[in-house]
Amino acid sequence: MPRNILLLPGDGIGPEIVAEAEKVLRKVNDDFKLDLHFESALVGGAALDEHDDPLPDETLDKGRKADAILLGAVGGPKWDSLPMAKRPEKGLLGLRSNLELFANLRPAILYPQLASASSLKPEVVSGLDIMIVRELTGGIYFGQPRGIRNLEHGERQGYNTYAYTESEIRRIGRVAFETAQQRGKKLCSVDKANVLEVTVMWREIMEDLKREYPDVELTHMYVDNAAMQLVRAPKQFDVIVTGNMFGDILSDEAAMLTGSIGMLPSASLNSDKQGMYEPCHGSAPDIAGQGIANPLATILSAAMMLRYSLDEEEAAKAIEAAVSKVLDQGLRTADIMSEGGQKVSTREMGEAVLNAL
Amino acid sequence: MPRNILLLPGDGIGPEIVAEAEKVLRKVNDDFKLDLHFESALVGGAALDEHDDPLPDETLDKGRKADAILLGAVGGPKWDSLPMAKRPEKGLLGLRSNLELFANLRPAILYPQLASASSLKPEVVSGLDIMIVRELTGGIYFGQPRGIRNLEHGERQGYNTYAYTESEIRRIGRVAFETAQQRGKKLCSVDKANVLEVTVMWREIMEDLKREYPDVELTHMYVDNAAMQLVRAPKQFDVIVTGNMFGDILSDEAAMLTGSIGMLPSASLNSDKQGMYEPCHGSAPDIAGQGIANPLATILSAAMMLRYSLDEEEAAKAIEAAVSKVLDQGLRTADIMSEGGQKVSTREMGEAVLNAL
Ligand SMILES: CC(C)[C@H](C(=O)O)[C@@H](O)C(=O)O
Ligand SMILES: CC(C)[C@H](C(=O)O)[C@@H](O)C(=O)O
Repeated sequence: MPRNILLLPGDGIGPEIVAEAEKVLRKVNDDFKLDLHFESALVGGAALDEHDDPLPDETLDKGRKADAILLGAVGGPKWDSLPMAKRPEKGLLGLRSNLELFANLRPAILYPQLASASSLKPEVVSGLDIMIVRELTGGIYFGQPRGIRNLEHGERQGYNTYAYTESEIRRIGRVAFETAQQRGKKLCSVDKANVLEVTVMWREIMEDLKREYPDVELTHMYVDNAAMQLVRAPKQFDVIVTGNMFGDILSDEAAMLTGSIGMLPSASLNSDKQGMYEPCHGSAPDIAGQGIANPLATILSAAMMLRYSLDEEEAAKAIEAAVSKVLDQGLRTADIMSEGGQKVSTREMGEAVLNAL
Repeated sequence: MPRNILLLPGDGIGPEIVAEAEKVLRKVNDDFKLDLHFESALVGGAALDEHDDPLPDETLDKGRKADAILLGAVGGPKWDSLPMAKRPEKGLLGLRSNLELFANLRPAILYPQLASASSLKPEVVSGLDIMIVRELTGGIYFGQPRGIRNLEHGERQGYNTYAYTESEIRRIGRVAFETAQQRGKKLCSVDKANVLEVTVMWREIMEDLKREYPDVELTHMYVDNAAMQLVRAPKQFDVIVTGNMFGDILSDEAAMLTGSIGMLPSASLNSDKQGMYEPCHGSAPDIAGQGIANPLATILSAAMMLRYSLDEEEAAKAIEAAVSKVLDQGLRTADIMSEGGQKVSTREMGEAVLNAL
């Protein structure tokens, strides 16, 4: 069965890291006879430069037709002073929302080979394996009304709306409970139900869903406490589910506990399992074009794509095993370099994964 | 000049820790002839139980008349299922808002005697000293409209409003710049200006204020990145300024970097320097009434009160020195206990500080 993969290199280090992941995907395509077909398109700053639009119609059309999308990263100082509607981030947010990619899965896993990179004590993080399930197409990111208005007494007011409907909460809740069922069967729902009405409803609905998943243990935690507990004792968590904004903050915090954010992939899925896959890290404009970026998070994102959208578990596992092998060999890009490692470039790391496959 | 201090023990461990801080305040009152006068009142769950109101008029009146307030903590499972308007937290939020305590100062300091309590590697946190300036009376905590409504197609929607006016941002910005001037002259403003309009205006106004404080270096950081950087390299920060919700999350995260949240005080000030002082930790209902809670954060909050609201720097320093001395003596409550320490109760710790004064 032929499947279409859309490659969206984007900005900064995006093109360099997506190029390596593409090679890896083409190799497993051949090895496992997956019948994958590749297209690419512009998004973010790259699309702004070419078409004055961070998400050109052509890109969105190709996205709709694709079975899965592999994205590098968007954004950079070059476009930072543009008005909100004309910013690279709008390309990313537009894809998420137009394709209804409401379920964002962000693993925070500590690779044993990279344990020393963490700023936390080894005993606090060794074996860390958390999955954060972040709602991605609602909440304050997309809530209306929003903007900056002039008040009667002459000054301006900026405002955004944090809103969720029951059905939006229910569908992300189900993804989270199902994810927990396939893992350690512990789900922690993060809210601010002591202050925000929208999250009072969030908590209610999570409680309600619990009855459908009696094998999963559900707990609730306020977001400020969750931010603390991630630092204090992150291994207490299995799966965390939360809204768009809290998920943005907590998933980055959790990722950094591992000390190697250059290793962490992510998946954004809709209800048809169509998905967009991207590294957790950003476009790193400061090192773009130097050939030193770590392609592993993008390569691991390709593995997630094979698993979640293409149902090719074997090929996914092969990629993950190859990545583990190159780490065992001591190969390290600059961001994860430590004593005794062998420093390699973006391309060398990509080649090493190819060879390990 | 006589000054009125209002004691609000609140819930959980609140009464136990405020009792110790009161003894310390009474002692410096005598020693330094401060002419302080003490009153107390009910707030939170304690006030709900007695008056069916988390913030009775009498408490608010006494608060208005006081030069400074010392609060323990509010909340507990007993009141968790009450409707939003009848929750202990409303007492705290009502005090903040009615007294216009818009400037929340939360230090995250690592006590060298307690360095081993941190979950981070010693080299990452040794000497840590960050001040978080959190806006406390605006943002999504107080924004209107808010609630849960029925949509036309039959399901419910929860919603809150994240709003700031220019003047609200300007006044917290000034406090932050002035705080930075008195410290390391570095201010990092945290926002989500790539997504939220309200924080685009926040960033603009911080930039605008910069011209009035040419000796302070201003940087901006997205909140997700700030959550990461606090874990990766917290010592890069001097003063952080941010809105109510982001401040709630980041200040707790920063506090936990020290590993000893039982040590951290906070101040909430209005433009007349009237202030409410409270420990960063919560009401800890699980250990309430056992006499084992750490009173030092509350005692250090009393020191902050002397410094910021009462202009009694000498007395403040005396308390801080006394706390440092008992730590040097190896005295530890359960939460900060480690090998070689001498475990003491809440009361013993309070007595030890009195003796050290
Ligand atoms: C680039 C930005 C809009 C985005 C977000 O806030 O969602 C990013 O931080 C992420 O987490 O994917
Ligand atoms: C108790 C709660 C309402 C409060 C807040 O969210 O502000 C607390 O977490 C704090 O930080 O003081």
